[in-house]
Amino acid sequence: MKINGPFVEKLLTGFIRTELERTGFARGILGVSGGLDSSVTAALAVRAVGPDNVIGMIMPYGRAFGRDADDARLLARELGITTREVDIAPSVDAYYSRFPTEDRLLRGNKMARERMSVLYDFSVREKALIIGTSNKTELLLGYGTIHGDMACAFNPIGDLYKTQLRELARHLGLPESIITKAPTAGLWDGQTDEEELGLSYEEIDRIRVRMSDLRHSPEQLAEQGFDPVHVERLSGMIRSAEFKRRMPPIAKLSDRTVGLDFLYPYDRER
Amino acid sequence: MKINGPFVEKLLTGFIRTELERTGFARGILGVSGGLDSSVTAALAVRAVGPDNVIGMIMPYGRAFGRDADDARLLARELGITTREVDIAPSVDAYYSRFPTEDRLLRGNKMARERMSVLYDFSVREKALIIGTSNKTELLLGYGTIHGDMACAFNPIGDLYKTQLRELARHLGLPESIITKAPTAGLWDGQTDEEELGLSYEEIDRIRVRMSDLRHSPEQLAEQGFDPVHVERLSGMIRSAEFKRRMPPIAKLSDRTVGLDFLYPYDRER
Repeated sequence: MKINGPFVEKLLTGFIRTELERTGFARGILGVSGGLDSSVTAALAVRAVGPDNVIGMIMPYGRAFGRDADDARLLARELGITTREVDIAPSVDAYYSRFPTEDRLLRGNKMARERMSVLYDFSVREKALIIGTSNKTELLLGYGTIHGDMACAFNPIGDLYKTQLRELARHLGLPESIITKAPTAGLWDGQTDEEELGLSYEEIDRIRVRMSDLRHSPEQLAEQGFDPVHVERLSGMIRSAEFKRRMPPIAKLSDRTVGLDFLYPYDRER
Repeated sequence: MKINGPFVEKLLTGFIRTELERTGFARGILGVSGGLDSSVTAALAVRAVGPDNVIGMIMPYGRAFGRDADDARLLARELGITTREVDIAPSVDAYYSRFPTEDRLLRGNKMARERMSVLYDFSVREKALIIGTSNKTELLLGYGTIHGDMACAFNPIGDLYKTQLRELARHLGLPESIITKAPTAGLWDGQTDEEELGLSYEEIDRIRVRMSDLRHSPEQLAEQGFDPVHVERLSGMIRSAEFKRRMPPIAKLSDRTVGLDFLYPYDRER
């Protein structure tokens, strides 16, 4: 799990520069929540293209999670990036006042998609490309909203587990308050990821790196002392989140079908 | 370009049934706009799983495009499917009253993403899987909103060109008014796709089927009498829309990276 901070920084800042150049953008834009993932991504973007070329979108829901918005503002000031603030409450409430629900997941998904919609809108207004902030633990477990916080033009941190991001954050010198605070999807007040997932990120990542990266079998993990119930639960989450990691399947009728055998730029350019 | 109606119907209804069974859903849900694509998809879904298992979401922006909403209601009645109506104006206006713009593309994208957000919300409420309605012409040219109307769980019509969908609509016995009306993305009043694209769908599809499916070169197309300016313009659109047809790239750091070499179910199940 251990990462080589300077090497990872060099590789990811290069990736950010390449993606911006390839697509013809001078600037990047990303949602900053005050959490670890978006803070690390913002810091990497600043080291890649400089603070003047990074825009941080702060998108609170009214006054909820006020400490997180404060952390986001603090980080933006420390990094010297421009911020834009958009309260998503008026739009989201205009919907939920007509179609009320107390379901926290429904409410959280609606908020995540409103943030996506605002971010894409500002991306055009500011001529800045959207940088993704989903980590590998999240992408594997599907612990994110499809067409919400998972939406982006490219993602520098998608191959780093949550625990590796903490290490990278230390290497990048991020504020300790951001590194140590309990990760939350901000679905409701007091919610923490680890409580909802029923396992700590450290435990999850130790299991996942063995299974996803080292291809250990469930039997090997049991021998190593991991609880088979935890192992099977994580595998189940990965299976059911598959749809969030791929394009929707299209029924094949022709010689070349989008997403199957029409795969520019891997295919011929015509 | 000619299609075999009964064969295509059989293949696509089978695809719809398979996708619903595979994911454990009894019902499908889709946005119905009164246009050709969503009407054909709704008719296919009804033939696949019966009208009681199909929900049509009608999502007008206030009273704009009133005739299209009327067509959607008429079609839903003819097919015997359940409908739900959600006016997206309150949510969209809650945003644009604070961040005004007259840019029609910005406004159209925001509306498309609000419809997506509502559709995904109802998908959970109604326990129904989202059926996509983007045709092949659209997917190739990128003539749709990413994380908007292009978002779905699976897409039965994504390998059929617009002109082939007209033929399929006739085979399925859809109302002539829906088949012959000018296609529009509903971006503004009086907007038509063909005027905006600068070419008729028939012309576009005749060029695209030669290039994308038959792999004719631009030189061959010129010999066949197609205007090289049109040919190059369509190729340019396809190139710049690539990002709408694939998942965002992730920087590779580990042995198995999401979207690259972690590709369940094509990979080992662990």
